[in-house]
Amino acid sequence: MNLLLLEQEDFVEENEVLLKDRRFVHLKDIHQAESGDALRVGMLNGLMGEGEILDFTSNSARIRVRLDQPAPCKLPITLVLALPRPKMLRRILQGISCMGVPRLILINSYRVEKSFWQTPFLESSAIREQLILGLEQARDTVLPEIIIEKRFKPFAEDRLPSIAKGTLGLTGHPGHYPPCPRQVDGPVTLAIGPEGGWIPYEVDKLHEAGLEPVQLGERILRVETAVTALLARLF
Amino acid sequence: MNLLLLEQEDFVEENEVLLKDRRFVHLKDIHQAESGDALRVGMLNGLMGEGEILDFTSNSARIRVRLDQPAPCKLPITLVLALPRPKMLRRILQGISCMGVPRLILINSYRVEKSFWQTPFLESSAIREQLILGLEQARDTVLPEIIIEKRFKPFAEDRLPSIAKGTLGLTGHPGHYPPCPRQVDGPVTLAIGPEGGWIPYEVDKLHEAGLEPVQLGERILRVETAVTALLARLF
Repeated sequence: MNLLLLEQEDFVEENEVLLKDRRFVHLKDIHQAESGDALRVGMLNGLMGEGEILDFTSNSARIRVRLDQPAPCKLPITLVLALPRPKMLRRILQGISCMGVPRLILINSYRVEKSFWQTPFLESSAIREQLILGLEQARDTVLPEIIIEKRFKPFAEDRLPSIAKGTLGLTGHPGHYPPCPRQVDGPVTLAIGPEGGWIPYEVDKLHEAGLEPVQLGERILRVETAVTALLARLF
Repeated sequence: MNLLLLEQEDFVEENEVLLKDRRFVHLKDIHQAESGDALRVGMLNGLMGEGEILDFTSNSARIRVRLDQPAPCKLPITLVLALPRPKMLRRILQGISCMGVPRLILINSYRVEKSFWQTPFLESSAIREQLILGLEQARDTVLPEIIIEKRFKPFAEDRLPSIAKGTLGLTGHPGHYPPCPRQVDGPVTLAIGPEGGWIPYEVDKLHEAGLEPVQLGERILRVETAVTALLARLF
Protein backbone atom coordinates (compact mmCIF):
# COMPACT_ATOMS: atom_id res chain seq x y z
CA MET A 1 0.00 0.00 0.00
CA ASN A 2 1.90 3.03 -1.27
CA LEU A 3 -1.13 5.29 -0.92
CA LEU A 4 -3.86 5.33 1.70
CA LEU A 5 -7.11 5.65 -0.26
CA LEU A 6 -9.93 7.51 1.49
CA GLU A 7 -13.65 7.81 0.90
CA GLN A 8 -16.18 10.43 1.95
CA GLU A 9 -17.51 8.33 4.84
CA ASP A 10 -14.05 8.14 6.43
CA PHE A 11 -14.17 11.85 7.28
CA VAL A 12 -15.06 12.88 10.83
CA GLU A 13 -13.91 16.50 10.40
CA GLU A 14 -13.28 18.59 7.32
CA ASN A 15 -9.65 17.44 7.12
CA GLU A 16 -9.64 14.43 9.41
CA VAL A 17 -10.45 10.78 8.85
CA LEU A 18 -10.96 7.95 11.33
CA LEU A 19 -10.01 4.46 10.09
CA LYS A 20 -10.83 1.12 11.72
CA ASP A 21 -11.00 -1.31 8.81
CA ARG A 22 -8.52 -3.18 6.58
CA ARG A 23 -6.57 0.02 6.06
CA PHE A 24 -6.12 0.52 9.81
CA VAL A 25 -4.96 -3.09 10.20
CA HIS A 26 -2.54 -2.65 7.31
CA LEU A 27 -1.11 0.54 8.83
CA LYS A 28 -0.71 -1.26 12.15
CA ASP A 29 0.64 -4.63 11.03
CA ILE A 30 2.56 -3.86 7.86
CA HIS A 31 3.60 -0.23 8.25
CA GLN A 32 3.92 -0.41 12.05
CA ALA A 33 2.46 3.08 12.02
CA GLU A 34 2.51 5.38 15.04
CA SER A 35 1.10 8.74 16.01
CA GLY A 36 3.04 11.47 14.27
CA ASP A 37 3.86 9.43 11.17
CA ALA A 38 3.42 11.04 7.76
CA LEU A 39 1.93 9.09 4.89
CA ARG A 40 0.66 9.54 1.35
CA VAL A 41 -3.09 9.75 1.09
CA GLY A 42 -5.62 10.13 -1.71
CA MET A 43 -9.35 10.63 -2.04
CA LEU A 44 -10.96 7.91 -4.13
CA ASN A 45 -11.60 9.48 -7.56
CA GLY A 46 -10.14 12.74 -6.23
CA LEU A 47 -6.98 14.54 -5.19
CA MET A 48 -3.91 13.11 -3.47
CA GLY A 49 -1.69 14.59 -0.78
CA GLU A 50 -0.13 14.07 2.64
CA GLY A 51 -1.56 12.73 5.85
CA GLU A 52 -0.34 12.93 9.44
CA ILE A 53 -1.40 10.38 12.00
CA LEU A 54 -2.83 12.38 14.93
CA ASP A 55 -3.79 9.45 17.10
CA PHE A 56 -3.03 5.77 16.65
CA THR A 57 -4.83 3.56 19.16
CA SER A 58 -5.24 -0.20 19.38
CA ASN A 59 -8.32 -0.13 17.17
CA SER A 60 -8.33 3.07 15.11
CA ALA A 61 -6.22 5.69 13.44
CA ARG A 62 -7.14 9.35 13.29
CA ILE A 63 -5.36 11.11 10.44
CA ARG A 64 -5.24 14.74 9.34
CA VAL A 65 -5.06 15.02 5.57
CA ARG A 66 -4.18 17.70 3.04
CA LEU A 67 -5.37 16.88 -0.47
CA ASP A 68 -3.85 19.21 -3.04
CA GLN A 69 -2.22 17.14 -5.79
CA PRO A 70 -3.77 15.67 -8.92
CA ALA A 71 -3.74 11.92 -9.52
CA PRO A 72 -1.24 10.71 -12.15
CA CYS A 73 -2.33 10.67 -15.79
CA LYS A 74 -4.03 7.60 -17.16
CA LEU A 75 -2.87 5.88 -20.35
CA PRO A 76 -4.91 6.88 -23.41
CA ILE A 77 -6.23 3.38 -23.98
CA THR A 78 -9.34 1.27 -24.05
CA LEU A 79 -8.33 -2.32 -23.36
CA VAL A 80 -10.60 -5.06 -24.69
CA LEU A 81 -9.80 -8.37 -23.04
CA ALA A 82 -11.23 -11.83 -23.52
CA LEU A 83 -12.34 -12.88 -20.03
CA PRO A 84 -9.35 -14.62 -18.41
CA ARG A 85 -9.58 -17.46 -15.92
CA PRO A 86 -10.71 -16.23 -12.48
CA LYS A 87 -7.38 -16.21 -10.64
CA MET A 88 -5.71 -14.41 -13.50
CA LEU A 89 -8.65 -12.01 -13.79
CA ARG A 90 -7.96 -10.80 -10.25
CA ARG A 91 -4.30 -10.15 -10.96
CA ILE A 92 -5.06 -8.48 -14.28
CA LEU A 93 -7.62 -6.15 -12.68
CA GLN A 94 -5.02 -5.14 -10.12
CA GLY A 95 -2.39 -4.81 -12.83
CA ILE A 96 -4.35 -2.65 -15.25
CA SER A 97 -5.48 -0.42 -12.40
CA CYS A 98 -1.87 -0.07 -11.31
CA MET A 99 -0.58 0.68 -14.82
CA GLY A 100 -3.18 3.38 -15.46
CA VAL A 101 -5.64 1.78 -17.87
CA PRO A 102 -8.77 3.95 -17.59
CA ARG A 103 -11.21 1.57 -19.32
CA LEU A 104 -11.32 -2.21 -19.59
CA ILE A 105 -13.93 -4.13 -21.54
CA LEU A 106 -14.17 -7.84 -20.68
CA ILE A 107 -15.65 -9.79 -23.56
CA ASN A 108 -16.45 -13.33 -24.50
CA SER A 109 -14.45 -15.28 -27.05
CA TYR A 110 -14.68 -18.76 -28.49
CA ARG A 111 -11.81 -19.97 -26.27
CA VAL A 112 -13.15 -18.46 -23.03
CA GLU A 113 -14.43 -21.33 -20.90
CA LYS A 114 -18.11 -20.80 -20.12
CA SER A 115 -17.50 -21.44 -16.43
CA PHE A 116 -15.30 -18.34 -16.20
CA TRP A 117 -18.44 -16.20 -16.44
CA GLN A 118 -19.75 -17.74 -13.21
CA THR A 119 -16.86 -16.57 -11.03
CA PRO A 120 -17.65 -14.44 -7.98
CA PHE A 121 -14.58 -12.39 -8.93
CA LEU A 122 -16.80 -10.73 -11.57
CA GLU A 123 -19.11 -9.27 -8.93
CA SER A 124 -18.74 -5.53 -8.77
CA SER A 125 -17.50 -5.53 -5.17
CA ALA A 126 -14.81 -8.10 -6.04
CA ILE A 127 -13.75 -6.13 -9.11
CA ARG A 128 -13.61 -2.94 -7.10
CA GLU A 129 -11.46 -4.60 -4.43
CA GLN A 130 -8.79 -5.56 -6.97
CA LEU A 131 -8.90 -2.17 -8.68
CA ILE A 132 -8.36 -0.43 -5.35
CA LEU A 133 -5.36 -2.64 -4.57
CA GLY A 134 -3.91 -1.56 -7.91
CA LEU A 135 -4.52 2.13 -7.17
CA GLU A 136 -2.93 1.78 -3.71
CA GLN A 137 0.10 0.12 -5.28
CA ALA A 138 0.53 2.68 -8.07
CA ARG A 139 -0.41 5.80 -6.06
CA ASP A 140 -3.45 6.67 -8.11
CA THR A 141 -6.96 7.55 -6.95
CA VAL A 142 -9.15 7.17 -10.01
CA LEU A 143 -10.97 3.87 -10.47
CA PRO A 144 -10.87 2.46 -13.99
CA GLU A 145 -14.19 1.78 -15.69
CA ILE A 146 -14.88 -1.94 -16.17
CA ILE A 147 -17.45 -2.96 -18.77
CA ILE A 148 -18.67 -6.53 -19.17
CA GLU A 149 -19.79 -7.68 -22.62
CA LYS A 150 -20.92 -11.27 -22.61
CA ARG A 151 -21.54 -11.59 -26.33
CA PHE A 152 -18.70 -11.15 -28.78
CA LYS A 153 -20.53 -10.53 -32.03
CA PRO A 154 -22.90 -7.71 -31.08
CA PHE A 155 -20.05 -6.00 -29.25
CA ALA A 156 -17.62 -6.33 -32.17
CA GLU A 157 -20.22 -5.31 -34.76
CA ASP A 158 -22.26 -2.66 -33.01
CA ARG A 159 -20.18 -1.05 -30.29
CA LEU A 160 -16.49 -1.60 -30.99
CA PRO A 161 -16.37 0.43 -34.25
CA SER A 162 -17.36 3.63 -32.46
CA ILE A 163 -14.95 2.90 -29.57
CA ALA A 164 -12.07 2.32 -31.99
CA LYS A 165 -12.89 5.29 -34.21
CA GLY A 166 -10.18 7.94 -34.08
CA THR A 167 -7.84 5.64 -32.13
CA LEU A 168 -5.00 3.36 -33.16
CA GLY A 169 -6.82 0.03 -33.17
CA LEU A 170 -4.75 -3.07 -32.44
CA THR A 171 -5.38 -6.75 -31.80
CA GLY A 172 -2.56 -8.61 -30.05
CA HIS A 173 -2.29 -11.98 -31.74
CA PRO A 174 0.66 -14.32 -32.38
CA GLY A 175 1.35 -14.93 -36.07
CA HIS A 176 2.72 -13.35 -39.21
CA TYR A 177 1.56 -9.85 -38.43
CA PRO A 178 3.47 -6.58 -38.08
CA PRO A 179 5.15 -6.11 -34.70
CA CYS A 180 3.23 -4.11 -32.13
CA PRO A 181 4.21 -0.43 -32.50
CA ARG A 182 6.23 1.32 -29.80
CA GLN A 183 5.77 4.60 -27.97
CA VAL A 184 2.69 5.71 -29.84
CA ASP A 185 1.12 9.15 -29.71
CA GLY A 186 -2.59 9.45 -29.23
CA PRO A 187 -5.30 7.06 -28.09
CA VAL A 188 -5.25 3.30 -28.60
CA THR A 189 -7.88 0.57 -28.62
CA LEU A 190 -6.16 -2.74 -27.90
CA ALA A 191 -7.76 -6.20 -27.90
CA ILE A 192 -6.01 -9.12 -26.20
CA GLY A 193 -7.29 -12.67 -26.61
CA PRO A 194 -7.72 -15.59 -24.23
CA GLU A 195 -5.26 -18.41 -23.54
CA GLY A 196 -4.99 -20.14 -26.90
CA GLY A 197 -5.67 -16.87 -28.70
CA TRP A 198 -8.52 -15.49 -30.78
CA ILE A 199 -10.00 -17.71 -33.47
CA PRO A 200 -9.64 -16.44 -37.06
CA TYR A 201 -13.31 -15.35 -37.17
CA GLU A 202 -12.69 -13.13 -34.15
CA VAL A 203 -9.50 -11.64 -35.58
CA ASP A 204 -11.50 -10.81 -38.72
CA LYS A 205 -14.37 -9.27 -36.77
CA LEU A 206 -11.98 -7.15 -34.70
CA HIS A 207 -10.27 -6.12 -37.92
CA GLU A 208 -13.60 -5.04 -39.45
CA ALA A 209 -14.19 -2.94 -36.35
CA GLY A 210 -10.87 -1.15 -36.94
CA LEU A 211 -8.34 -3.23 -34.98
CA GLU A 212 -5.28 -4.40 -36.92
CA PRO A 213 -3.56 -7.57 -35.75
CA VAL A 214 -0.04 -7.10 -34.36
CA GLN A 215 2.36 -9.54 -32.71
CA LEU A 216 4.88 -9.46 -29.89
CA GLY A 217 7.43 -11.98 -31.18
CA GLU A 218 7.47 -15.75 -31.42
CA ARG A 219 7.23 -16.44 -27.70
CA ILE A 220 3.71 -17.16 -26.47
CA LEU A 221 3.10 -15.12 -23.35
CA ARG A 222 0.53 -15.70 -20.64
CA VAL A 223 -2.31 -13.21 -20.91
CA GLU A 224 -1.31 -11.20 -17.86
CA THR A 225 2.28 -10.96 -19.10
CA ALA A 226 1.07 -9.94 -22.55
CA VAL A 227 -1.10 -7.18 -21.07
CA THR A 228 1.83 -5.66 -19.18
CA ALA A 229 4.26 -6.13 -22.08
CA LEU A 230 1.93 -4.53 -24.64
CA LEU A 231 1.16 -1.54 -22.39
CA ALA A 232 4.87 -1.02 -21.62
CA ARG A 233 5.74 -1.15 -25.30
CA LEU A 234 2.93 1.12 -26.51
CA PHE A 235 3.38 3.95 -23.97
CA MET B 1 1.72 -26.09 -22.30
CA ASN B 2 2.47 -24.84 -25.80
CA LEU B 3 5.50 -27.09 -26.16
CA LEU B 4 6.10 -30.62 -24.86
CA LEU B 5 9.58 -30.55 -23.33
CA LEU B 6 11.54 -33.80 -23.50
CA GLU B 7 14.64 -35.10 -21.78
CA GLN B 8 17.10 -37.81 -22.73
CA GLU B 9 15.56 -40.36 -20.37
CA ASP B 10 12.17 -40.06 -22.10
CA PHE B 11 13.55 -41.75 -25.23
CA VAL B 12 12.80 -45.42 -25.78
CA GLU B 13 13.91 -45.41 -29.44
CA GLU B 14 16.05 -43.00 -31.41
CA ASN B 15 13.03 -40.87 -32.36
CA GLU B 16 10.41 -42.08 -29.90
CA VAL B 17 9.57 -41.09 -26.36
CA LEU B 18 7.31 -42.72 -23.79
CA LEU B 19 5.65 -40.38 -21.27
CA LYS B 20 3.82 -41.33 -18.08
CA ASP B 21 4.32 -38.35 -15.79
CA ARG B 22 2.85 -34.86 -15.40
CA ARG B 23 3.24 -34.29 -19.13
CA PHE B 24 1.17 -37.37 -19.95
CA VAL B 25 -1.54 -36.27 -17.52
CA HIS B 26 -1.54 -32.80 -19.03
CA LEU B 27 -1.85 -34.21 -22.56
CA LYS B 28 -4.73 -36.41 -21.41
CA ASP B 29 -6.69 -34.01 -19.20
CA ILE B 30 -6.03 -30.60 -20.72
CA HIS B 31 -5.27 -31.34 -24.36
CA GLN B 32 -7.57 -34.39 -24.55
CA ALA B 33 -4.87 -35.89 -26.75
CA GLU B 34 -5.42 -39.00 -28.87
CA SER B 35 -3.34 -41.30 -31.03
CA GLY B 36 -2.52 -39.56 -34.29
CA ASP B 37 -2.45 -36.04 -32.83
CA ALA B 38 0.41 -33.76 -33.83
CA LEU B 39 2.05 -31.55 -31.25
CA ARG B 40 5.03 -29.22 -30.79
CA VAL B 41 7.94 -30.81 -29.00
CA GLY B 42 11.37 -29.70 -27.87
CA MET B 43 14.45 -31.27 -26.31
CA LEU B 44 15.42 -29.59 -23.06
CA ASN B 45 18.39 -27.37 -23.88
CA GLY B 46 18.19 -28.60 -27.51
CA LEU B 47 16.23 -28.44 -30.74
CA MET B 48 12.48 -28.12 -31.22
CA GLY B 49 10.19 -29.74 -33.76
CA GLU B 50 7.05 -31.79 -34.32
CA GLY B 51 5.75 -34.86 -32.56
CA GLU B 52 3.09 -37.39 -33.55
CA ILE B 53 1.29 -39.44 -30.92
CA LEU B 54 1.72 -43.07 -31.99
CA ASP B 55 -0.11 -44.65 -29.11
CA PHE B 56 -2.15 -43.02 -26.36
CA THR B 57 -3.20 -45.45 -23.63
CA SER B 58 -4.80 -44.94 -20.24
CA ASN B 59 -1.41 -44.50 -18.57
CA SER B 60 1.17 -43.55 -21.19
CA ALA B 61 1.79 -41.75 -24.46
CA ARG B 62 4.25 -42.96 -27.08
CA ILE B 63 5.29 -40.14 -29.36
CA ARG B 64 7.49 -40.04 -32.46
CA VAL B 65 9.47 -36.81 -32.65
CA ARG B 66 11.43 -34.91 -35.27
CA LEU B 67 13.72 -32.29 -33.78
CA ASP B 68 15.06 -29.95 -36.45
CA GLN B 69 14.38 -26.35 -35.42
CA PRO B 70 16.44 -24.07 -33.20
CA ALA B 71 14.97 -22.62 -30.01
CA PRO B 72 13.99 -18.93 -30.17
CA CYS B 73 16.67 -16.33 -29.41
CA LYS B 74 17.14 -15.20 -25.83
CA LEU B 75 17.17 -11.55 -24.85
CA PRO B 76 20.71 -10.13 -24.49
CA ILE B 77 20.30 -9.41 -20.80
CA THR B 78 21.57 -10.29 -17.36
CA LEU B 79 18.81 -9.53 -14.87
CA VAL B 80 19.84 -8.79 -11.30
CA LEU B 81 16.86 -9.02 -8.97
CA ALA B 82 16.51 -8.44 -5.26
CA LEU B 83 14.99 -11.66 -3.95
CA PRO B 84 11.19 -11.23 -4.11
CA ARG B 85 8.72 -12.77 -1.66
CA PRO B 86 8.31 -16.51 -2.29
CA LYS B 87 4.97 -16.52 -4.13
CA MET B 88 6.12 -13.75 -6.40
CA LEU B 89 9.49 -15.47 -6.90
CA ARG B 90 7.74 -18.45 -8.46
CA ARG B 91 5.77 -16.32 -10.89
CA ILE B 92 8.84 -14.24 -11.76
CA LEU B 93 10.93 -17.36 -12.48
CA GLN B 94 8.21 -18.57 -14.82
CA GLY B 95 7.89 -15.11 -16.34
CA ILE B 96 11.57 -14.49 -17.05
CA SER B 97 11.94 -17.99 -18.48
CA CYS B 98 8.95 -17.32 -20.73
CA MET B 99 10.22 -13.93 -21.88
CA GLY B 100 13.67 -15.24 -22.78
CA VAL B 101 15.94 -13.95 -20.02
CA PRO B 102 19.04 -16.17 -20.22
CA ARG B 103 20.57 -15.26 -16.84
CA LEU B 104 19.01 -14.16 -13.56
CA ILE B 105 21.01 -13.25 -10.47
CA LEU B 106 18.99 -13.19 -7.23
CA ILE B 107 20.63 -10.95 -4.67
CA ASN B 108 20.05 -9.69 -1.21
CA SER B 109 19.05 -6.11 -0.48
CA TYR B 110 18.33 -4.15 2.67
CA ARG B 111 14.57 -4.39 2.09
CA VAL B 112 14.52 -8.14 1.36
CA GLU B 113 12.98 -9.84 4.39
CA LYS B 114 15.44 -12.36 5.83
CA SER B 115 12.77 -15.07 5.90
CA PHE B 116 12.53 -14.97 2.08
CA TRP B 117 15.90 -16.76 1.91
CA GLN B 118 14.41 -19.74 3.77
CA THR B 119 11.76 -20.53 1.17
CA PRO B 120 11.74 -24.02 -0.37
CA PHE B 121 11.01 -22.28 -3.68
CA LEU B 122 14.73 -21.46 -3.81
CA GLU B 123 15.69 -25.14 -3.96
CA SER B 124 17.10 -26.01 -7.33
CA SER B 125 14.33 -28.50 -8.15
CA ALA B 126 11.68 -25.89 -7.33
CA ILE B 127 13.43 -23.25 -9.44
CA ARG B 128 13.77 -25.68 -12.31
CA GLU B 129 10.06 -26.55 -12.15
CA GLN B 130 9.04 -22.91 -12.62
CA LEU B 131 11.60 -22.31 -15.36
CA ILE B 132 10.29 -25.32 -17.28
CA LEU B 133 6.71 -24.05 -17.00
CA GLY B 134 7.93 -20.80 -18.54
CA LEU B 135 9.70 -22.61 -21.40
CA GLU B 136 6.61 -24.73 -22.09
CA GLN B 137 4.49 -21.57 -22.19
CA ALA B 138 6.85 -19.62 -24.49
CA ARG B 139 7.91 -22.53 -26.74
CA ASP B 140 11.56 -22.41 -25.77
CA THR B 141 13.86 -25.23 -24.72
CA VAL B 142 16.86 -23.57 -23.11
CA LEU B 143 16.84 -23.22 -19.32
CA PRO B 144 17.96 -19.84 -18.01
CA GLU B 145 20.89 -19.79 -15.62
CA ILE B 146 19.89 -18.79 -12.08
CA ILE B 147 22.61 -17.53 -9.75
CA ILE B 148 22.02 -16.89 -6.06
CA GLU B 149 24.08 -14.20 -4.35
CA LYS B 150 23.19 -13.88 -0.71
CA ARG B 151 25.44 -10.93 0.05
CA PHE B 152 24.91 -7.62 -1.69
CA LYS B 153 28.20 -5.86 -1.09
CA PRO B 154 30.72 -8.46 -2.31
CA PHE B 155 28.53 -9.11 -5.34
CA ALA B 156 28.18 -5.41 -6.21
CA GLU B 157 31.84 -4.68 -5.58
CA ASP B 158 33.62 -7.76 -6.84
CA ARG B 159 31.49 -9.48 -9.45
CA LEU B 160 28.97 -7.03 -10.87
CA PRO B 161 31.54 -4.69 -12.52
CA SER B 162 32.80 -7.47 -14.80
CA ILE B 163 29.23 -8.61 -15.58
CA ALA B 164 28.18 -5.06 -16.47
CA LYS B 165 31.31 -4.27 -18.47
CA GLY B 166 30.56 -3.76 -22.16
CA THR B 167 26.80 -3.77 -21.52
CA LEU B 168 24.25 -1.03 -21.01
CA GLY B 169 24.00 -1.07 -17.23
CA LEU B 170 20.68 0.04 -15.71
CA THR B 171 19.08 0.09 -12.28
CA GLY B 172 15.30 0.37 -12.27
CA HIS B 173 14.39 2.75 -9.47
CA PRO B 174 11.55 5.24 -8.99
CA GLY B 175 12.72 8.83 -8.66
CA HIS B 176 14.13 11.76 -10.55
CA TYR B 177 16.18 9.71 -13.00
CA PRO B 178 16.16 9.52 -16.79
CA PRO B 179 13.40 7.31 -18.22
CA CYS B 180 14.36 3.73 -19.03
CA PRO B 181 15.56 3.62 -22.67
CA ARG B 182 13.53 1.83 -25.33
CA GLN B 183 14.44 -0.75 -27.97
CA VAL B 184 18.13 -0.83 -27.20
CA ASP B 185 20.77 -2.53 -29.30
CA GLY B 186 23.31 -4.74 -27.61
CA PRO B 187 23.53 -6.37 -24.22
CA VAL B 188 22.00 -5.01 -21.03
CA THR B 189 22.60 -5.56 -17.34
CA LEU B 190 19.46 -4.56 -15.45
CA ALA B 191 18.98 -4.47 -11.68
CA ILE B 192 15.47 -4.39 -10.19
CA GLY B 193 14.94 -3.79 -6.49
CA PRO B 194 12.64 -5.31 -3.89
CA GLU B 195 9.22 -4.05 -2.81
CA GLY B 196 9.97 -0.66 -1.33
CA GLY B 197 12.93 -0.24 -3.66
CA TRP B 198 16.70 -0.14 -3.25
CA ILE B 199 18.10 2.00 -0.46
CA PRO B 200 20.32 4.92 -1.58
CA TYR B 201 23.50 3.04 -0.57
CA GLU B 202 22.52 0.21 -2.92
CA VAL B 203 21.70 2.55 -5.80
CA ASP B 204 25.15 4.10 -5.30
CA LYS B 205 26.89 0.73 -5.19
CA LEU B 206 25.10 -0.43 -8.35
CA HIS B 207 26.05 2.86 -9.98
CA GLU B 208 29.72 2.35 -9.07
CA ALA B 209 29.50 -1.08 -10.71
CA GLY B 210 28.30 0.54 -13.95
CA LEU B 211 24.50 0.55 -13.58
CA GLU B 212 22.79 3.92 -14.12
CA PRO B 213 19.47 4.50 -12.36
CA VAL B 214 16.46 4.84 -14.67
CA GLN B 215 12.74 5.15 -13.92
CA LEU B 216 9.50 3.91 -15.44
CA GLY B 217 7.19 6.81 -14.57
CA GLU B 218 5.53 7.95 -11.38
CA ARG B 219 3.43 4.84 -10.83
CA ILE B 220 4.95 2.33 -8.42
CA LEU B 221 4.69 -1.12 -9.98
CA ARG B 222 4.82 -4.47 -8.27
CA VAL B 223 8.15 -6.18 -8.88
CA GLU B 224 6.78 -8.79 -11.26
CA THR B 225 4.99 -6.11 -13.29
CA ALA B 226 8.14 -3.99 -13.37
CA VAL B 227 10.20 -6.93 -14.64
CA THR B 228 7.83 -7.54 -17.56
CA ALA B 229 7.40 -3.83 -18.31
CA LEU B 230 11.15 -3.13 -18.32
CA LEU B 231 11.91 -6.12 -20.56
CA ALA B 232 9.13 -5.17 -22.98
CA ARG B 233 10.36 -1.62 -23.16
CA LEU B 234 14.06 -2.45 -23.57
CA PHE B 235 13.71 -5.08 -26.32
